Amino acid sequence: MLLGKVTGSVWGAKQAENLAGYRIAAVRPLVFSGAAEFREDVDERFLSDTLVLAVDRIGADTGELVLVAIGSRVRDLVAGEDCPTKNCVIAIVDKAVIGM
Amino acid sequence: MLLGKVTGSVWGAKQAENLAGYRIAAVRPLVFSGAAEFREDVDERFLSDTLVLAVDRIGADTGELVLVAIGSRVRDLVAGEDCPTKNCVIAIVDKAVIGM
Amino acid sequence: MLLGKVTGSVWGAKQAENLAGYRIAAVRPLVFSGAAEFREDVDERFLSDTLVLAVDRIGADTGELVLVAIGSRVRDLVAGEDCPTKNCVIAIVDKAVIGM
Amino acid sequence: MLLGKVTGSVWGAKQAENLAGYRIAAVRPLVFSGAAEFREDVDERFLSDTLVLAVDRIGADTGELVLVAIGSRVRDLVAGEDCPTKNCVIAIVDKAVIGM
Amino acid sequence: MLLGKVTGSVWGAKQAENLAGYRIAAVRPLVFSGAAEFREDVDERFLSDTLVLAVDRIGADTGELVLVAIGSRVRDLVAGEDCPTKNCVIAIVDKAVIGM
Repeated sequence: MLLGKVTGSVWGAKQAENLAGYRIAAVRPLVFSGAAEFREDVDERFLSDTLVLAVDRIGADTGELVLVAIGSRVRDLVAGEDCPTKNCVIAIVDKAVIGM
Repeated sequence: MLLGKVTGSVWGAKQAENLAGYRIAAVRPLVFSGAAEFREDVDERFLSDTLVLAVDRIGADTGELVLVAIGSRVRDLVAGEDCPTKNCVIAIVDKAVIGM
Repeated sequence: MLLGKVTGSVWGAKQAENLAGYRIAAVRPLVFSGAAEFREDVDERFLSDTLVLAVDRIGADTGELVLVAIGSRVRDLVAGEDCPTKNCVIAIVDKAVIGM
Repeated sequence: MLLGKVTGSVWGAKQAENLAGYRIAAVRPLVFSGAAEFREDVDERFLSDTLVLAVDRIGADTGELVLVAIGSRVRDLVAGEDCPTKNCVIAIVDKAVIGM
Repeated sequence: MLLGKVTGSVWGAKQAENLAGYRIAAVRPLVFSGAAEFREDVDERFLSDTLVLAVDRIGADTGELVLVAIGSRVRDLVAGEDCPTKNCVIAIVDKAVIGM
């Protein structure tokens, strides 16, 4: 499970059955660069260069902080058993407090 | 399974069913920077910049050292079968001795 | 699940049963280096040095952007239960918009 | 599965049921820094800064080279079905030969 | 699944039941450092410093390029259900073509 900022979206052309209809969010994980309290506005220096892709059934907007979980069970619970990926947005974050 | 220091908490706004009621802890993994014996006071140079998020049913306070396990079975044992993440705090660490 | 560019192919000589007949694509994941909109032409500075290998049943050409999912279920859905790897190309990407 | 050197131990205070009674070993993975043959004495420059934690039922001493496997099946085989982690020491290494 | 070069072997002394009889190969993953076509001779600058360990039932020699898959199913198919690790060599590579 990771905490990250939604920074974009991906659209498929030719794709596996069952992927149609899912919004694919691109998420940059937070890294630690000193104590901070986050709501929505996350400074660039707190964001990793890595991109994690996840299906989003919750409706997170670009710029929002989210929790992304990775696993079969979460996929079944959140996106359905036939979804061909197990990376899922499970929460839009209201507040994150990271200390030293 | 990783050893890390609890450095914060995350609160969800809109979130997956079954995530409500879980405390989400933000944990920074320990990295090796020379032999040491840790109880609670972990120096900044022993902490990774990465943030790992985990559900905490044990009640770890910010600043405490914990073990975080990742897996379906541990989730079932520690947090319940319907918990939509498989990262779990499984122990508050009393002592960690890391040598060369 | 990751977003990457197909940059090559791998052919096995002596190999596990059931791997015969699969095209193995070599994929370089995208990393973030500033906001961009991608279709097919991905600049070198947006690509990681890591190589991820995945079976491709969709027919992605070298140079195309793809989504690669990793998991047992996706393997069953996309490549069949006896395929001895669970990294699968699940979509050829039409458009990816990555912001700040 | 990784190859690493046991560099310490961790003791839990408050912990998940079923974790009591397991020795938790702290292991630093080997990285490549030129061809070498290892028995027990592994030079600092061959060790990663990362710490991997694993249950040890084999009795590896600090300083010994071990193989750590990660998975549900290995946990069932080596540590028991109720062990709340799936990182396990599966071998004390007698000899490792790493070439160019 | 990763593409790497076999660079050595590991022998266990005291080890988990069922691990006896398996050859444990040490593999260095390929990283991208410019377009290339590989058969057996892989230059040092294309190899990661990381070591991945895998059981080898195919008989890869040191110096050969291999595909390593990670998962329960591949272990069952390639090494048997009681093998206490799920990292397996699944192919000796005949040719790998990696472009820009």
